[in-house]
Amino acid sequence: MLTFEKDEFKERIRKTKERMSNQGIEVLIATHPANMNYLSGYDGWSFYVHQGLIILIDQDEPIWFGREQDSNGARLTTWLSADNIKGYQDDYVQSLVKHPMSFVANILKNRGYDDKNIGVEMDNYYFTPRCLGQLRTDLPCAEFKDATLIIPRVRLIKSERELKYMKMASRIVENVMQVAIDTIEPGVREGDAAANVYHAQISGTKEYTGDYTAIAPIMPSGERTSTAHLTWTDRKYQKGDVVLLELAGSKYKYHAPLSRTVFIGEPPKDLTEIAKVVVEGLNQTLDFIKPGITCEEVEEKWRKSISGSKVVKESRVGYAYGLNYPPDWGEHTASLRPGDKTILKEGMTFHFMPGIWLDKFGFENSEPFYVTSNGCETFVDFPRKLFIK
Amino acid sequence: MLTFEKDEFKERIRKTKERMSNQGIEVLIATHPANMNYLSGYDGWSFYVHQGLIILIDQDEPIWFGREQDSNGARLTTWLSADNIKGYQDDYVQSLVKHPMSFVANILKNRGYDDKNIGVEMDNYYFTPRCLGQLRTDLPCAEFKDATLIIPRVRLIKSERELKYMKMASRIVENVMQVAIDTIEPGVREGDAAANVYHAQISGTKEYTGDYTAIAPIMPSGERTSTAHLTWTDRKYQKGDVVLLELAGSKYKYHAPLSRTVFIGEPPKDLTEIAKVVVEGLNQTLDFIKPGITCEEVEEKWRKSISGSKVVKESRVGYAYGLNYPPDWGEHTASLRPGDKTILKEGMTFHFMPGIWLDKFGFENSEPFYVTSNGCETFVDFPRKLFIK
Repeated sequence: MLTFEKDEFKERIRKTKERMSNQGIEVLIATHPANMNYLSGYDGWSFYVHQGLIILIDQDEPIWFGREQDSNGARLTTWLSADNIKGYQDDYVQSLVKHPMSFVANILKNRGYDDKNIGVEMDNYYFTPRCLGQLRTDLPCAEFKDATLIIPRVRLIKSERELKYMKMASRIVENVMQVAIDTIEPGVREGDAAANVYHAQISGTKEYTGDYTAIAPIMPSGERTSTAHLTWTDRKYQKGDVVLLELAGSKYKYHAPLSRTVFIGEPPKDLTEIAKVVVEGLNQTLDFIKPGITCEEVEEKWRKSISGSKVVKESRVGYAYGLNYPPDWGEHTASLRPGDKTILKEGMTFHFMPGIWLDKFGFENSEPFYVTSNGCETFVDFPRKLFIK
Repeated sequence: MLTFEKDEFKERIRKTKERMSNQGIEVLIATHPANMNYLSGYDGWSFYVHQGLIILIDQDEPIWFGREQDSNGARLTTWLSADNIKGYQDDYVQSLVKHPMSFVANILKNRGYDDKNIGVEMDNYYFTPRCLGQLRTDLPCAEFKDATLIIPRVRLIKSERELKYMKMASRIVENVMQVAIDTIEPGVREGDAAANVYHAQISGTKEYTGDYTAIAPIMPSGERTSTAHLTWTDRKYQKGDVVLLELAGSKYKYHAPLSRTVFIGEPPKDLTEIAKVVVEGLNQTLDFIKPGITCEEVEEKWRKSISGSKVVKESRVGYAYGLNYPPDWGEHTASLRPGDKTILKEGMTFHFMPGIWLDKFGFENSEPFYVTSNGCETFVDFPRKLFIK
């Protein structure tokens, strides 16, 4: 049931250890579900309890820890040997008197790693101040360092097989977007369009089904398009609505995000104008992207290509993405924005997302792309325009 | 667009402040999206960036903080006045040099609350060690206390309107479960059954649509039922499969979770036996539940009612639930398990979830219920049994 060859996992571990070593980290505790999956294959909706991988700098295999009832899941989905799968008893779960990080501390004590430099994810959804506090209490001789980005930085460059899964997800999102646009009509409830979107996401293609995506379909209409990140309601679409569609496909938790905008009826002139400017700027920027330039240069190119227009876009225009779990498919490493000096390399994957939210409505038209040896390729084949219904 | 009357929000704030006061907390920073929604109405898939509410003990209204591009969402979905909606610039997002908690610290400094006792959620997905570290650095005169459970404990007892939303979600999950059972047949891909489940979750009923649920459909089959929390694959159902269905409906992010088990073909005798024992134990336990008893007494009753059978269940058998966001619909307050002395009160809502996972397969049959003035009522009307296809 492994989605990658064991050798690929081992190569990821090797690269992770290289970064650990450079930062003087001897033990890495990775709790982010995407980091866990990346190094071990572990997959399950169990990240609502404390769990993780322990990577020891001088050991070949990581140790999985989690709730005992999930340990069969680790046996089924990872390449780890039985000795390295450690389940804690259920009375550790959401307890006021015991904490799972004490269980982790005991593993480290038993193996003689209790006085090491330990890297933890200081700014990650799944590692809390209580986790850190418990580890500090139980391992007084250890030193703790921030290791939030060690594994995500390895994840930045995708292998052939990872790109393959992202392309599979891209086939799904093409269907998903078409289904959404086809469904949106005056009188249809937003929730019914969302239901069709979910159905297309998960039923996938004839060859394979899809996985849940790390972000729910974002698809506000009308006044609600003036802000980011709203989902759907019982409201029925009406003539004159703008509908934003920020959707995705996912296979083996590798994503394909895609945004488009629909107008129901005759669009106002300023929206048509914004659409034209955004799509032109997008095309010019994609032509410009190649290995060796920096993330901030991509954003600069975008900003220049829309200069002189009314379009104002103050937030970042894209970010690295790939393998992920809720609540975000972004990797939190590289962003297309001023100040980000990350150099683009072959195999990196970004969601270029020039979304615009004005006070009365918004317009989005994004493209996910990967960096090639001499330029970039977009993952998705879908018209770049304002869709009129 | 508010889903509750302003007075109900104010009553929740009053109860929250009462608990703050009892714990000597003058400022509460609530970042859990369910806590934010509960006090302000805020709703959006924006919890992947740092955001929250600040509750000041001597002020009527909380302050919303979040990303600037989400602040229109706060204007649209909360009852807060414009002055109390504070958006931070986009260069705070996932930055290595700036942290949103500095923005929060500045709000507190500007309003003269920088030397107070500040409650933060020490063991919550959305508040990280980095968040705490930044606040400590920026507010050296403040004292920080754990306030993880202050708002969840208020959330334990539901109002009439909350129960109404949970009943709406219950109507949805009845459809969802029936659709799942109807779809499961030899030769059907697990993912296609999951697609139908999602469609039923979101399209809801004729009267209203459904929302996304805090946990994805958990629906492993065959060998994968030997563990908790696996979702679906491309695998096709076969004769002889056990299929676990842990599904939910959601309205306004109020949930109705429900688990059932399907066997395709002639079930093995030990599975039929486990099913009978679990359902009988469930029925006996539900008859026993009433206000005034403790959570651990419920578990004890369950354990006694199955004693003498082969059924072994070491994990907790239920938990408080209601309003929530990914990754969990559980409230992390009261659990039906030994040691939990929470006293059941009218208006509390639990998911009684006696799931069994043996080495070769599992069986689940759950019931969500609410405590009434003299007993309990189940939310869902769905047969309690092993379903045979």
